Amino acid sequence: MKYINGGVTAAKGFTASGIHCGIRKNQTKKDLAMIKSENKCSAAAVYTQNKVYGAPITVTRANLADGMAQAVIVNSGNANTCNSDGVQKAEQMCGIAAEALGVDKSDVIVASTGVIGLSLDVTPIAASAPALAGQMNGQGGHDAAEAIMTTDTVAKECAVSFDLGGKTVTLGACCKGSGMIHPNMATMLCFMTTDCRISSAMLQKALSDVVKDTFNMISVDGDTSTNDMVCIMANGQAENPVIEEENEDFALFRSALAEVSVKLSRLIAGDGEGAQRLLECTVSGAPTVETAKNIAKSIICSSLVKTAMFGADANWGRILCAIGYTPGDFAVDCIDVSLSSCKGEVKVCQAGFGIDFSEEKAKEILLEDEIRLTVEMNQGTAAATAWGCDLTYDYVKINGDYRT
Amino acid sequence: MKYINGGVTAAKGFTASGIHCGIRKNQTKKDLAMIKSENKCSAAAVYTQNKVYGAPITVTRANLADGMAQAVIVNSGNANTCNSDGVQKAEQMCGIAAEALGVDKSDVIVASTGVIGLSLDVTPIAASAPALAGQMNGQGGHDAAEAIMTTDTVAKECAVSFDLGGKTVTLGACCKGSGMIHPNMATMLCFMTTDCRISSAMLQKALSDVVKDTFNMISVDGDTSTNDMVCIMANGQAENPVIEEENEDFALFRSALAEVSVKLSRLIAGDGEGAQRLLECTVSGAPTVETAKNIAKSIICSSLVKTAMFGADANWGRILCAIGYTPGDFAVDCIDVSLSSCKGEVKVCQAGFGIDFSEEKAKEILLEDEIRLTVEMNQGTAAATAWGCDLTYDYVKINGDYRT
Repeated sequence: MKYINGGVTAAKGFTASGIHCGIRKNQTKKDLAMIKSENKCSAAAVYTQNKVYGAPITVTRANLADGMAQAVIVNSGNANTCNSDGVQKAEQMCGIAAEALGVDKSDVIVASTGVIGLSLDVTPIAASAPALAGQMNGQGGHDAAEAIMTTDTVAKECAVSFDLGGKTVTLGACCKGSGMIHPNMATMLCFMTTDCRISSAMLQKALSDVVKDTFNMISVDGDTSTNDMVCIMANGQAENPVIEEENEDFALFRSALAEVSVKLSRLIAGDGEGAQRLLECTVSGAPTVETAKNIAKSIICSSLVKTAMFGADANWGRILCAIGYTPGDFAVDCIDVSLSSCKGEVKVCQAGFGIDFSEEKAKEILLEDEIRLTVEMNQGTAAATAWGCDLTYDYVKINGDYRT
Repeated sequence: MKYINGGVTAAKGFTASGIHCGIRKNQTKKDLAMIKSENKCSAAAVYTQNKVYGAPITVTRANLADGMAQAVIVNSGNANTCNSDGVQKAEQMCGIAAEALGVDKSDVIVASTGVIGLSLDVTPIAASAPALAGQMNGQGGHDAAEAIMTTDTVAKECAVSFDLGGKTVTLGACCKGSGMIHPNMATMLCFMTTDCRISSAMLQKALSDVVKDTFNMISVDGDTSTNDMVCIMANGQAENPVIEEENEDFALFRSALAEVSVKLSRLIAGDGEGAQRLLECTVSGAPTVETAKNIAKSIICSSLVKTAMFGADANWGRILCAIGYTPGDFAVDCIDVSLSSCKGEVKVCQAGFGIDFSEEKAKEILLEDEIRLTVEMNQGTAAATAWGCDLTYDYVKINGDYRT
């Protein structure tokens, strides 16, 4: 498996583009994207588990009921959520995409991201869709990735290729997500495309498996969004032997999907609203995977750990505190904690108690952009990793005046 | 029941004081307090449920096993937690207090608050205890309240009096808490004193009942501290008919305890680290009390709601989002939401969808110091209230360099 350039248009037969249509006031920000496959695709998705969910979720879920899709339309600047006319507007978006792209309306995946509770005006979408459709091409993945950004500071995409049954298969993706990030079953918007030949059922299985250990292990602010969605379309153009059961090819495809998902999860966490540092917390030696996951998430969600990391302060007592309030049955008197980055590693806690370490060295380590928090529980073999970011002045600034 | 001046020395027979002994570097900050009753008291306490808990919790739990206590010793500046010599140091503190105050060592409640994982030097405590004991008196409650402050900006105390069986009973308390506030079974340090005659068992029952709906419904930052403790001593000097069962007198005493606990809970939330505004969230019309509590807590814990309140931004979609990710079985399409303060009230959401409201009026309401978020679920009769605060630049500042 190897990383290649590109995103959602890296796989054979996919085109995309992004444009400013007028939903966002800032004319330099793209706000509408479409992605299309030449032929119909096996498709799968996972959605937010928030009981309050966006109208596009309702419509996409219905359109994907048959496991098939051919195109995506997505806007930023308005989440189309908590509006009494939301479902109607989301269906109109599908109709607009279907007409502009020459696909069936029921094969369109629709998504929206932005402010909640503001009625969505589809007029600019309808007016710009033909022009957007006209400029879609096999290099347009980056423009699409830009058009789905909200408070993101960088476009997030990646692609890998690997061999299946003598054929080269490509898997590409773009995603967005910076605030309201605490995914549960899915994350903020993520669109994946592949030319792999795989059934809808196997595609859904691979996606559901992978999401649990990747996107669902990120948190920027503990808020599970109303519009989270990860979807994938597989158009089969790689002509590999079709994957219809959990065989070796399925395992390889799933590991490629996991590779891409971890990469994107790290991109989202590292670009969390206001973030200066990516936090990667690995818990090992745990009695169960559930406990390892819960502890890793407790740590990266702790406001006190996050602010300490902002201050490059090795205040490890806050890590112990976050471990201690994690639900589950485990011992705390055998836990070791280390902090590391490209500048080295310091052990700060052994068997639940503090040990002497160089504050100077710790400071040097914590001033880097990517920090690893390593927890060895010494009471089992299970492990998990979670990703988050520091809590900074800019997070407060961005969210104190997001809407106004 | 009426509010009276004072705190832990308001009830008959209690003396207290606070002093700077040298644990904190800043000589203008008191860091050691003691509280004493003339006679032995019925006593009860609730403690943090964090699996990592301070050594003083271990020692106090042992000393209160017989339901009796006579004195409190407490320091700020060091939490005496995650230290291999912690229990030994906490026991030394009890010994120091017992000698200075002339009480049994096993009748001393010990508590510590401050940095986790730093060995506690008891030398300055031993050196200052005699002087502190010498200055204790019936007006010293405020000095004790000051000595337990860490990042608190105001001392927190209150007292009420009420009649029981023809006798006037007084209940007073002081507490501290500003960061690492997300109590579970108790809160940051809170010391209550009363001259009520009540058995240890009834005192524990009243305290456990009240804590669930008061201190456990506060959150400043979602972090459950390692040292949370609420304790109460009742010395019986009011000479009311002793409370030994759940009768009318018990109900009255419990309601006085609830009154004081709500008052202190609001003081803690309003003085949350960096806070500009107290948030009070009331959920009514819920199918169960559990659901009402969970939703109220979800809302006041949401970083996005908290930053919106900092920005005085009526971004109610974030409230709906926080409701939606709350666990439990409930409908979202019948929920109404209003925002209010002393400047009036605006309804922002009806039956799950946004409604027109004056942004100008909402801004005026949200610029006040105390904001009420009211959620009417329209699907039952249960209700709950939670208290929190906004998330500000100062929270990040305080916690980015707390230790250094």
